[in-house]
Amino acid sequence: MAGNSDSGQGEEETALDLWVAGGARAFDSRLETLLLEGAGLRPPRLVAAMRHAVLAGGKRLRPFLVIESARMAGIVGEGPLQVAAALECVHCYSLVHDDLPAMDNDDMRRGQPTVHRAYDEATAILAGDALLTIAFTMMADHRVSPSAAVRLRLVTALAEASGVDGMVGGQMLDLAAEGRFGAKEQPEQGIAGVLAIQSRKTGALIRFAAEAGALLLPRGDAKRRGALRRYGEALGLAFQIRDDLIDHEGDSLTAGKATGKDTTAGKATFISLLGADGARRQLDAVTAAGLEALAPFGAEARGLAAVLHFNRTRQS
Amino acid sequence: MAGNSDSGQGEEETALDLWVAGGARAFDSRLETLLLEGAGLRPPRLVAAMRHAVLAGGKRLRPFLVIESARMAGIVGEGPLQVAAALECVHCYSLVHDDLPAMDNDDMRRGQPTVHRAYDEATAILAGDALLTIAFTMMADHRVSPSAAVRLRLVTALAEASGVDGMVGGQMLDLAAEGRFGAKEQPEQGIAGVLAIQSRKTGALIRFAAEAGALLLPRGDAKRRGALRRYGEALGLAFQIRDDLIDHEGDSLTAGKATGKDTTAGKATFISLLGADGARRQLDAVTAAGLEALAPFGAEARGLAAVLHFNRTRQS
Repeated sequence: MAGNSDSGQGEEETALDLWVAGGARAFDSRLETLLLEGAGLRPPRLVAAMRHAVLAGGKRLRPFLVIESARMAGIVGEGPLQVAAALECVHCYSLVHDDLPAMDNDDMRRGQPTVHRAYDEATAILAGDALLTIAFTMMADHRVSPSAAVRLRLVTALAEASGVDGMVGGQMLDLAAEGRFGAKEQPEQGIAGVLAIQSRKTGALIRFAAEAGALLLPRGDAKRRGALRRYGEALGLAFQIRDDLIDHEGDSLTAGKATGKDTTAGKATFISLLGADGARRQLDAVTAAGLEALAPFGAEARGLAAVLHFNRTRQS
Repeated sequence: MAGNSDSGQGEEETALDLWVAGGARAFDSRLETLLLEGAGLRPPRLVAAMRHAVLAGGKRLRPFLVIESARMAGIVGEGPLQVAAALECVHCYSLVHDDLPAMDNDDMRRGQPTVHRAYDEATAILAGDALLTIAFTMMADHRVSPSAAVRLRLVTALAEASGVDGMVGGQMLDLAAEGRFGAKEQPEQGIAGVLAIQSRKTGALIRFAAEAGALLLPRGDAKRRGALRRYGEALGLAFQIRDDLIDHEGDSLTAGKATGKDTTAGKATFISLLGADGARRQLDAVTAAGLEALAPFGAEARGLAAVLHFNRTRQS
């Protein structure tokens, strides 16, 4: 990356390209090491299910956001990796529980059997519980930051993003939107309702990942956190719109899981509300808003910007 | 409690009597308040299921241990209550997931429908997840202690007691012992195997509760923590033996749930290994060991001692 640094699109994608080319797999090794740390005679089947859940590949989007936003704040090394690992455990636990027969009842995830198919339902429930719990062990670890206050701030932010006011609340709203609990529990099906689900179910963890760089600073940085938060909100929304478009364009081979499910379940999506063209226009607008939020960081934010560009056209 | 303090059995039970007479219900109000704290438009059905799980009554044994062990260390007020609430959320989440059809498949708990019966399986899975997550929000809260280091220590200890090396690992071992995953996964069925399950599945949280008083001290107190830990280990074991005896003496009315299940599932218990009389003798020995661990605290430990005495003869 020698020479002029005028941020052309090609150069913008460098950090993300490096991540895809090798960084994500290096992170996987780290995550595996952290998962296997600690003493205790662990039930082998439970450990195997946790590994299956966490190490099935994936883009590792959230870890990339944590590591990039931390680097932008001048923080590199073990701390961001540890935060990223904790967050990824929460993300993966949520997929395990979401896939359960009583939830979305998915047999496949990323081209592999889901945990309850590869093992069994009880093991999947407990593997999810164990991953959620170990995430807090990882986040409270001294390697996150020498500052206890920083670690506590991250523990609190992760719990809020993951819990009843964040991801879990969003999963519940999502099921309610499908009509699962009857018409009385069904939330408003307009754009506000879809946004309420998205901002919690998938948005909260992405927002946390983007904010992590600011949270890792010993004294915090409200301005930085605010900008990263706006970026994270835009990115989360952009991801959901793109997911809906992929689902609409429907190709179960490239998506790696069954597609077209949301519309058959009668649930409002960005496509059903805006139409495919409307959703594409919305995706462009949200992408632009995300880039705008990054403007104060200048060329330093190229890695985060690349994620928005990548998302616009991704096929899975 | 004026006058002479020579610890007769009657006086020993005072703190526990007060807890049973009103303290536990006062704690329930506090727990309810904490559960409902925080902004956000929470899905009503999820909140109702969380309340159902947490506020179904119960002895509140673990909160009593937290509050008593903290009082013995000179710590009273909001801190121990907050720790107790966090711990009780973890305990209750574990019951919700344990009761699920794919786990123990229990319809009733404390004389009431289990969460998945009162609501549905998806709601029960998510309510459990939300309770586990909110426990960490509560534990990281500034009201636990002004010291960030103390709060972090408690977050770490709670995660370890609850996770793959603690409670969740124990739940998994328990299912494996039933032969759920086939003979290959079935652990050794002797006394060591039963102890391995007990010390994790139910023992770890009881041990944490007993240790909490020492953990709340700003500089820690290894000697105090060690004694409380030995007490907690003994109490956890004594509880399990008493549970097995209640199950054996079998009266589904007083126990409030189906009994005789463990033996029909072919799983080793203290009764199947030691016989009822042997189990009673073991209970007496473990009770004595727990009292012995409390000796250094003198009369200050009457409340904790009363739990051991109460347990010896409880019927439910």
